[in-house]
Amino acid sequence: MYSAFESEIKIRPDDIDLNNHVHNTKYLDFVLAARYEQMVKDYKMSMEDFHRLNFNWVVSVTHIEYKRSLKLDDKIIVRTQVDSVNGAQSKVNFWIIKKETEKIAAEGHLIYTMVSLKTGRPVRIPNEIIEKYSI
Amino acid sequence: MYSAFESEIKIRPDDIDLNNHVHNTKYLDFVLAARYEQMVKDYKMSMEDFHRLNFNWVVSVTHIEYKRSLKLDDKIIVRTQVDSVNGAQSKVNFWIIKKETEKIAAEGHLIYTMVSLKTGRPVRIPNEIIEKYSI
Amino acid sequence: MYSAFESEIKIRPDDIDLNNHVHNTKYLDFVLAARYEQMVKDYKMSMEDFHRLNFNWVVSVTHIEYKRSLKLDDKIIVRTQVDSVNGAQSKVNFWIIKKETEKIAAEGHLIYTMVSLKTGRPVRIPNEIIEKYSI
Amino acid sequence: MYSAFESEIKIRPDDIDLNNHVHNTKYLDFVLAARYEQMVKDYKMSMEDFHRLNFNWVVSVTHIEYKRSLKLDDKIIVRTQVDSVNGAQSKVNFWIIKKETEKIAAEGHLIYTMVSLKTGRPVRIPNEIIEKYSI
Repeated sequence: MYSAFESEIKIRPDDIDLNNHVHNTKYLDFVLAARYEQMVKDYKMSMEDFHRLNFNWVVSVTHIEYKRSLKLDDKIIVRTQVDSVNGAQSKVNFWIIKKETEKIAAEGHLIYTMVSLKTGRPVRIPNEIIEKYSI
Repeated sequence: MYSAFESEIKIRPDDIDLNNHVHNTKYLDFVLAARYEQMVKDYKMSMEDFHRLNFNWVVSVTHIEYKRSLKLDDKIIVRTQVDSVNGAQSKVNFWIIKKETEKIAAEGHLIYTMVSLKTGRPVRIPNEIIEKYSI
Repeated sequence: MYSAFESEIKIRPDDIDLNNHVHNTKYLDFVLAARYEQMVKDYKMSMEDFHRLNFNWVVSVTHIEYKRSLKLDDKIIVRTQVDSVNGAQSKVNFWIIKKETEKIAAEGHLIYTMVSLKTGRPVRIPNEIIEKYSI
Repeated sequence: MYSAFESEIKIRPDDIDLNNHVHNTKYLDFVLAARYEQMVKDYKMSMEDFHRLNFNWVVSVTHIEYKRSLKLDDKIIVRTQVDSVNGAQSKVNFWIIKKETEKIAAEGHLIYTMVSLKTGRPVRIPNEIIEKYSI
């Protein structure tokens, strides 16, 4: 069982689209920003640390269910939690939560694949890294 | 069985991200742009036509599987096909295809929900519209 | 002489481009986000307040001089200051400053035009609003 | 006197903002996309060719005057023209033109600086390159 971590993401005017709501594709940008921050803040292993080991994380699958629209003035929390690790892949669940009402604006999951920076090919996630993420 | 339709989408420099590839969230923007174009070109019923009838389409689910990265100079075709229509929702499958190699860069589906422009609430898709989309 | 106000803006992974730096067009998005926040925080008159009075601000001119590139991990402050108000227009100077070194990453100005939400035409900025901004 | 070149840029739904018009910062993305295309199409020297010579172009100044708003269905042409070349810098004027009415939606200029890919420092633009651009 993995821990859930949270990041507050600030909605900007350029996130808003022609329907006057946060644009559909920005939800994923918020999740990617939250994971990027949580790598440093919670896992103590930044993307740069991965690059130094010649690893990179790429996104292989994204699945998003939109529940409530978001407006420019909404405050949001992005909660993420590793679901499972398998070979070169790690599945991460996420929830985008309206801070004021604690209602879920969107939920879903991503599958990240670890690749070699040199070859671009998938690489089995090393045990040391699985341990780092097993908190 | 519904027809598949295609749109060529041009990749722009601002679609490229820190990995030197098309950014993950832009894939969905390409699909949304293709559907927007195909509403006019293929279904002969533009988003404006929907708005005039007080309807709007919102995206309820997106699922994307990334197969191959895209570079700035790649030419791409977005193929979409209605999978099914059910109540207020329409499921649309899509494929992003590299023009030169005909290989699939990404595939997935979206679920659109028809909502009333006035209330924002889901509305059963009227038969006339199902017919328009049953080509 | 008008006061200068500051907002901290957080750089996100989707702001980074193919040169591994903050994309040129995002600098302006940061300034627009800072002004949007400062309307509430400093001028006590939100964009919504303007809309309720049937006014809107549109951007008529942007001028940006890029001095230093910004990376994903840089912390930045956006400082803005009204330069002058004239008829329907307000000129705002801005500086994007690296928090750690206090060096200027970019500077420039915007000219905003007040328009009527109904007609879309420029409107002389009323004295009450000039006063609100004369702090 | 340098030639003017033109590119047609297609507006996408993700270019539209909360005012239901093309977002202010996208105008510059359109110009950058047009220049990128024109490097290949008109100057016969792609960005990749520059990188192979260990050069890169970075944007040092942008100045945009917005004249008319753009909507999702507008067709636009981006016209650009080198104004002058001086040391490491090249000034390029641009016009974004509505195809149907031939009216100018925006105009302005950019100053590009040639830098060394290795050092990141400005480099005097070599005569061979000035010649390539003197068409």
